[in-house]
Amino acid sequence: MSLQVQPRLITLEGGEGAGKSTVLAALREALAATGAEVLCTREPGGTPLAEQIRGLLLDTHHEPATPEAELLLVFAGRAQHVSETVLPALRRGAWVVSDRFTDASYAYQGEGRGLDPEFIAELERRVVGIEPALTLLLDVPVAIGLQRARGRGAADRIEAEREDFFERVRAGYRARAQSQPQRFHVIDASQPADVVAAEAVARVRRLLEAGA
Amino acid sequence: MSLQVQPRLITLEGGEGAGKSTVLAALREALAATGAEVLCTREPGGTPLAEQIRGLLLDTHHEPATPEAELLLVFAGRAQHVSETVLPALRRGAWVVSDRFTDASYAYQGEGRGLDPEFIAELERRVVGIEPALTLLLDVPVAIGLQRARGRGAADRIEAEREDFFERVRAGYRARAQSQPQRFHVIDASQPADVVAAEAVARVRRLLEAGA
Ligand SMILES: Nc1ncnc2c1ncn2[C@@H]1O[C@H](COP(=O)(O)OP(=O)(O)OP(=O)(O)O)[C@@H](O)[C@H]1O
Ligand SMILES: Nc1ncnc2c1ncn2[C@@H]1O[C@H](COP(=O)(O)OP(=O)(O)OP(=O)(O)O)[C@@H](O)[C@H]1O
Ligand SMILES: [Mg+2]
Ligand SMILES: [Mg+2]
Repeated sequence: MSLQVQPRLITLEGGEGAGKSTVLAALREALAATGAEVLCTREPGGTPLAEQIRGLLLDTHHEPATPEAELLLVFAGRAQHVSETVLPALRRGAWVVSDRFTDASYAYQGEGRGLDPEFIAELERRVVGIEPALTLLLDVPVAIGLQRARGRGAADRIEAEREDFFERVRAGYRARAQSQPQRFHVIDASQPADVVAAEAVARVRRLLEAGA
Repeated sequence: MSLQVQPRLITLEGGEGAGKSTVLAALREALAATGAEVLCTREPGGTPLAEQIRGLLLDTHHEPATPEAELLLVFAGRAQHVSETVLPALRRGAWVVSDRFTDASYAYQGEGRGLDPEFIAELERRVVGIEPALTLLLDVPVAIGLQRARGRGAADRIEAEREDFFERVRAGYRARAQSQPQRFHVIDASQPADVVAAEAVARVRRLLEAGA
């Protein structure tokens, strides 16, 4: 059972404060200009239930999830998101741009928490079943990203992790991008926001042309 | 990697309204009479986070979980419960009695929802890792159990399922008990509550004697 590549699914990945939400807005505009429907979504989240799961992952009012519980919560939300939001949109011909997707689990729960990537791959095959045609990895040094993200206020459960956790996440993302160069496009996200957005839009235009 | 049998872990299984909570109280008393610590717990639930996950599974304010999302939510809660509640109690020598445990996933998510039992077994090996020394299956015809449970008020997400769902769950439990007769003890739970409780207590006393 292998993953089905979705020609109109684009995902954004990167550490905290890399600029994913900023790039998402630029991609929404560029894709909408083609006249097609564009659905922008995010993980964890993307359906009412999956947003509730996101709340459990990020809030700090109960004891922290164990690594295994965190992994299964993330994939529960992803299964729901794919089935209820992503696939229905793709089936009606929309473009779907997701702020994080399965790669985030290899980086955060795999490299960050130290869980077996084979288990993650099994969950991906069993409950996700699809992969994006294009993944933009916004790569930025950890210190810069955290500084940007922390400008936003109180840290959630993930943002409160230690620096070495984020270093492992960053290395995990970069290694994964290197091992799948046809799907990943890595952008140096320490550049000014407008430069990063322009590079992302240019890469998506190439995808549009390839599909036309 | 096989499951580690826990000599002091007892689980109660059965459909809606079979009488699990009623039997739990009787077992608590019988075990406490030995002077040992007794921890009574339940699934889904058993830690603050796992109780929140239980809320997501049972409440009806968001769209229903897909079968896969439901399975992963249940195992996320179970991973948390085992790591934070069950194992610490067993390590300090307590008896642990859980109102539902992993067998419920084979019955509800496996037989009830039609998910692959091999996937459930993989999750069990990966994030649970332990199994009870004794499982009491309270077996009762579906109609009787539902009538008892519905005496309690508004139906939650699971209780609102159709009768054929509960028939599959019951058959799933019975088949599982038959395939592991050394671990399971099946009680005819259509008998009066005091008879059911007495049979459960008698079976647990045999376990105590075997361990003494
Ligand atoms: N290339 C950039 N240079 C400088 N600042 C940026 C850049 N991109 C985004 N920012 C700013 O950094 C902050 C974080 O950006 P953004 O929210 O887009 O990151 P993110 O990757 O979505 O973060 P998170 O992972 O926390 O969702 C925002 O204040 C944003 O305006
Ligand atoms: N053997 C019995 N005969 C008749 N009534 C019973 C019996 N056992 C329990 N009851 C009653 O049936 C109702 C349901 O019992 P209980 O709550 O113990 O079941 P349960 O298996 O825990 O249900 P649930 O799966 O919904 O938690 C209660 O009102 C209880 O008093
Ligand atoms: Mg963001
Ligand atoms: Mg009960």
